[in-house]
Amino acid sequence: MKLRLLKEAEIIHFVRKEFFSKEKGLALGIGDDAAVIRAGTKSLILTKDLLIENVHFKKSFHPPRMLGRKSLAVNVSDIAAMGAKSRFALLGLGLPKNTPPGFVESFFEGFKAAAENFSTVLIGGDVCRAEKVTISVTVIGEGRKIVTRSGARPGHIIYVSGHLGNAAEGLAILKKGVRWGEDRERDVLLKAFLDPDPCLKLGAALAKGPLVSSMIDLSDGLSADLDHICRESGCGAEIEKECIPLSSCLKKFSRRPYDRALYGGEDYQLLFTVPPEKVPAVEKIGRGYCLTRIGRIIRRRDIFIIENKKRRPLIKRSFEHF
Amino acid sequence: MKLRLLKEAEIIHFVRKEFFSKEKGLALGIGDDAAVIRAGTKSLILTKDLLIENVHFKKSFHPPRMLGRKSLAVNVSDIAAMGAKSRFALLGLGLPKNTPPGFVESFFEGFKAAAENFSTVLIGGDVCRAEKVTISVTVIGEGRKIVTRSGARPGHIIYVSGHLGNAAEGLAILKKGVRWGEDRERDVLLKAFLDPDPCLKLGAALAKGPLVSSMIDLSDGLSADLDHICRESGCGAEIEKECIPLSSCLKKFSRRPYDRALYGGEDYQLLFTVPPEKVPAVEKIGRGYCLTRIGRIIRRRDIFIIENKKRRPLIKRSFEHF
Repeated sequence: MKLRLLKEAEIIHFVRKEFFSKEKGLALGIGDDAAVIRAGTKSLILTKDLLIENVHFKKSFHPPRMLGRKSLAVNVSDIAAMGAKSRFALLGLGLPKNTPPGFVESFFEGFKAAAENFSTVLIGGDVCRAEKVTISVTVIGEGRKIVTRSGARPGHIIYVSGHLGNAAEGLAILKKGVRWGEDRERDVLLKAFLDPDPCLKLGAALAKGPLVSSMIDLSDGLSADLDHICRESGCGAEIEKECIPLSSCLKKFSRRPYDRALYGGEDYQLLFTVPPEKVPAVEKIGRGYCLTRIGRIIRRRDIFIIENKKRRPLIKRSFEHF
Repeated sequence: MKLRLLKEAEIIHFVRKEFFSKEKGLALGIGDDAAVIRAGTKSLILTKDLLIENVHFKKSFHPPRMLGRKSLAVNVSDIAAMGAKSRFALLGLGLPKNTPPGFVESFFEGFKAAAENFSTVLIGGDVCRAEKVTISVTVIGEGRKIVTRSGARPGHIIYVSGHLGNAAEGLAILKKGVRWGEDRERDVLLKAFLDPDPCLKLGAALAKGPLVSSMIDLSDGLSADLDHICRESGCGAEIEKECIPLSSCLKKFSRRPYDRALYGGEDYQLLFTVPPEKVPAVEKIGRGYCLTRIGRIIRRRDIFIIENKKRRPLIKRSFEHF
């Protein structure tokens, strides 16, 4: 197999084919939110994310404490999407020569606060020099019932948690020069990007049963992440535009709030599908969270969006930070 | 606690104090070659290394296939140093926009060959954009008897495997403009840097029993890695300069071969200590490998080098690639 393009999706597809394995002890390999290996009666869930300066964040507008929190949170979010518990973390940190010690201290302060928050213990890693701040986190989670991306079936109901698009609008505001702490109202949007909260408790609650047939965390944007579920499950979806949950803040400050929700990334909310008979139980859980029905899974392998009762194919677009 | 400097060792010391944990299920945390968590009757060993362009390698002289192999090998080496088996790997890959697809293909070809070689299955990871090629690998190993850095005691004999200093000399030759494949004799040195072989089988053989009281892989250079063992074990060491194993190649091409061995990094050989009663068994294993006695552990917490029957403190110096 040859690589034609250098798009992330194509590389992952290439690697998946080249490295396909039926290794004993491996329950789930390349292609889901995280990999799963069996250890005794439990499953260990492993996830890894790189955060690179000027690609995923800018030092000029990301307070280091929030960056420390976020670097753990985005990985914990993958664990949440599998309905598992976060247990351990490894941290690789590349630092430019001129980095002020205060930056490193604040970064670790944030990382530590997040680690306590998510009951996750830092157990090791690596520190080295780098031209740009480079953060690589691996999180090890633990669970018994693991939810993947591949269980959605025609007729299942599509839900999302929280409000979508806040993080992408927050990033757009930061790019315009507004900084964290300058404007209380806009800070809601900024925080969504700078310091997201992974849905660890919700993920675990939905995995019990399990109540959900598939689940993913929204890191690439609703359109891309719904596409991941549909591809892995071998089906399609239709969603209703008016149902997509937008915050009042987003509606106030954004000129194209639905675009942010559909194509903006990094919301770290959960997108999941529910078999009809499990809907009442999910709605019951939903009282403690903000959950919204946005559509349903269909047999035809395409994704549609319904607006003013008209159904049209959902345009695909991918999210890039900078 | 405040950070004063931004040296790697100080950051690790800082993090170790701040993140100290007695978490259930955690057998060994920050400060060894790898972290160890308990999973049923087995131990899982986790290690993580960052390889960053222009810090750890240069694209101009590192053939991508060898880079792929090396990025896995250096992590597997940490697993080898704990006497464990390598099982799974996660790969985070940051790629500049202009990276040729051929580079990525060759990189994965090398990574795959190494994975097969070390019986290690790639189970997941992350691909993203980066300004410089950024490689972050996590390896998960498995073992029953884990060897740490902290078991050396006065009177134990210090051994190393293989020849030391080849990699550092290889890097120096590459920096002078000689390239892989140009000179068969020098290629021995170049290969040591470009495509090291971790001592997986030897590590496992020494951990059986166990025959060794402490073990580490030589990534920072003999002086620094011996210092790690001495610090963690609360003792000192004396080594005999003439005993340090040097390859004929190194002696031929290097003007300061002992400096390369003492202060050059990335040999990925094993440095270990053996209680006197286990020496015969180690010597027996040694027949299949190249093992050399280079000194002994002492009570006094300093490291000495003996040359022409004179003992002097070993100067500490750290290794930087570029």
